[in-house]
Amino acid sequence: MRFQAVKGTRDFYPEDMAIRNWIVKSWRDVSLRNGFEEYDGPIFEYLDLFKAKSGEGIVSELFHFKDRGDRDLAIRPEMTPTLARMICAKAHSLPRPIKWFSTPRLCRAERPQRGRLREFFQWNIDIVGTDDVVSDAECIFVILDFFRQIGLTPADVVLKINSRSLLAALLSARGFEPSRHQEIYTVLDKRDKLPEDAYAEVLGKVVRTDREKADLRAIVQAHGENGLNEIAGLVTHDPAATAEVELLRRLFGLLGTMGVADYCTFDMSVVRGLAYYTGVVFEGFGKAGLQRAICGGGRYDQLLELLGGPPMSGIGFGTSDVVILDLLAELDRLPADARVSKRVEFYVIDADPSRFETVLDLVARLRSAGYAAEFSYKRQAIPKQFKQASAVGAKHAVSR
Amino acid sequence: MRFQAVKGTRDFYPEDMAIRNWIVKSWRDVSLRNGFEEYDGPIFEYLDLFKAKSGEGIVSELFHFKDRGDRDLAIRPEMTPTLARMICAKAHSLPRPIKWFSTPRLCRAERPQRGRLREFFQWNIDIVGTDDVVSDAECIFVILDFFRQIGLTPADVVLKINSRSLLAALLSARGFEPSRHQEIYTVLDKRDKLPEDAYAEVLGKVVRTDREKADLRAIVQAHGENGLNEIAGLVTHDPAATAEVELLRRLFGLLGTMGVADYCTFDMSVVRGLAYYTGVVFEGFGKAGLQRAICGGGRYDQLLELLGGPPMSGIGFGTSDVVILDLLAELDRLPADARVSKRVEFYVIDADPSRFETVLDLVARLRSAGYAAEFSYKRQAIPKQFKQASAVGAKHAVSR
Repeated sequence: MRFQAVKGTRDFYPEDMAIRNWIVKSWRDVSLRNGFEEYDGPIFEYLDLFKAKSGEGIVSELFHFKDRGDRDLAIRPEMTPTLARMICAKAHSLPRPIKWFSTPRLCRAERPQRGRLREFFQWNIDIVGTDDVVSDAECIFVILDFFRQIGLTPADVVLKINSRSLLAALLSARGFEPSRHQEIYTVLDKRDKLPEDAYAEVLGKVVRTDREKADLRAIVQAHGENGLNEIAGLVTHDPAATAEVELLRRLFGLLGTMGVADYCTFDMSVVRGLAYYTGVVFEGFGKAGLQRAICGGGRYDQLLELLGGPPMSGIGFGTSDVVILDLLAELDRLPADARVSKRVEFYVIDADPSRFETVLDLVARLRSAGYAAEFSYKRQAIPKQFKQASAVGAKHAVSR
Repeated sequence: MRFQAVKGTRDFYPEDMAIRNWIVKSWRDVSLRNGFEEYDGPIFEYLDLFKAKSGEGIVSELFHFKDRGDRDLAIRPEMTPTLARMICAKAHSLPRPIKWFSTPRLCRAERPQRGRLREFFQWNIDIVGTDDVVSDAECIFVILDFFRQIGLTPADVVLKINSRSLLAALLSARGFEPSRHQEIYTVLDKRDKLPEDAYAEVLGKVVRTDREKADLRAIVQAHGENGLNEIAGLVTHDPAATAEVELLRRLFGLLGTMGVADYCTFDMSVVRGLAYYTGVVFEGFGKAGLQRAICGGGRYDQLLELLGGPPMSGIGFGTSDVVILDLLAELDRLPADARVSKRVEFYVIDADPSRFETVLDLVARLRSAGYAAEFSYKRQAIPKQFKQASAVGAKHAVSR
């Protein structure tokens, strides 16, 4: 073979494409019924856009190049910068709340390794222009509506919810100055992603004393209803933190009203590494096997300003085709129908080769009327044609 | 505004996205009912793959870059190299004929100018593994089935059909050696794409005498049934050329049987510039206004070998969202429905703000049952909510 696909990318042969289409269609259906509108941007942006959001460090993670005018461009590694740019450009004319979704192809200049692809598809949901807790609930409902749609129950997946502002209040109360919070978030976010000793090492770099280390470990251990109640007891003297606790309680109440409380739990260990989250943050996990994060998101209040827009609060999440397919494979839960790449309603049998034109005539009429119709190029015996009709899964075999 | 989209790319706000989805869905529906299966590849490939197909000259037309391992990669400017690579990799296991379609996003490093985008979507149809003229007819039928589906009639568009092998026979008969044919194809292909004097200039570069120039002008003027009959008269002494004429006649006959002959005409001026076409070639044109080419394709017999695969004959075509949308805009024929980005079946009215939870409960139940349901975040007077329901095009307004 002279040419191969680039490592870390996938070829989508018809069966693989059918599965990808099945996932993307599920994302679309769920998004639309939840009142979201689809958008998309170009596959590449000015490199500066990504730098503005994520800093110089992002450059090595991007596929970047120059155009003929020597401008630096990069393939998008995530959708949020494009979303923010597009909303900023029409911030004053778009009706709010802006409820948008997208299913972009994204690329990252990873070193190819198992489970780390350089190209994947992501589902993004965002509600921008409101900080109403109802929009937190709706955003979280959408991902759970999708899980339910593809047959994932609370026995399979859990959505862990936290509040960055509450975490910040707890950190401040234990003497961690706000200027240290971001580096602490980045480390705490690695808690479930690193082996125990590797995590201890990075944790050791951001704490100054054993006391601080113990404090951090204690804070992130709080989880479940009891955990939230304990924290509520700790912050009675702090009105802002108490308000955050109340907000989380209201959010859990709304999720109960919407019938998805069984999927949700409070968990102080969910931090999210990104700098721009300000309020509610959440991550979904598979319960069996790898227990990898399968989706994540949160509220961002300063993101649009960071990228040159007006102050607008928003909440969003993302998940990828890769993690969802991995989980479904692990659970052996991919529906057989998702693999079907060819749909044939009528297979038109050629009963008399001398009148083959009548086959083509009927096939053309059926297709133009909207039916999927197929026939054999080769003139073959009738039993062979029936066999082929059956092989392509035709619903009906017809003859003229 | 701090950031803008890269010039020559498009942002797809919800209404634009709805239109793009409408086109892509039309492509998919037509492809599937004609018995084609969808495939896709990565957005980037090794640069060498594109060079192998198109030569070194292609590099300046590509967005290319290096990965961390210093390998040269490029964003795909067309789908055919990926198609050929994928088929080569499984040439011995794929059932034939291979009937595949794709709707890829493609990028070209054009200097941005009106009508020349650096990013667009293309519909590709290919039938590989047979040289049966029925597959020529079926391939052409698919694009005409699409035109009919979106309301383009033979009054709006014409499909001009020719045969490269017939053209080659005519050229040889007039003394143009086969080694000169490719440069002549490249020039003839520009006949409708350049102003008259610019065309005369490039034509002047490939002919050696005024006699040759006159011969070329005469050859490409043949068109319609009469044109084909005249050519048939010229080549009676040449069995290969006569066979090509018969093949074209059979093709037109099959297209008649399939009910699309009204769209089709023979036209010796359709040449296609690409080197790899060997048999039937065709191009579609809008009849009004710009008369731009809106689709094109043909039979290729050596393409897969060129890219390292086994000898397999194939036929395919491509068209892009840009040319189709331009034509529909020119004809003012884009259906109003194609712009609808939000579908709301139920708008749930909050009749009593103190019982807002019942609204959320109903909305969640409707959505989980598969219905598109919407509600207002803000607690508003009932008439205002009805107004909003109407503004988003809700089919039903319901209240609890």
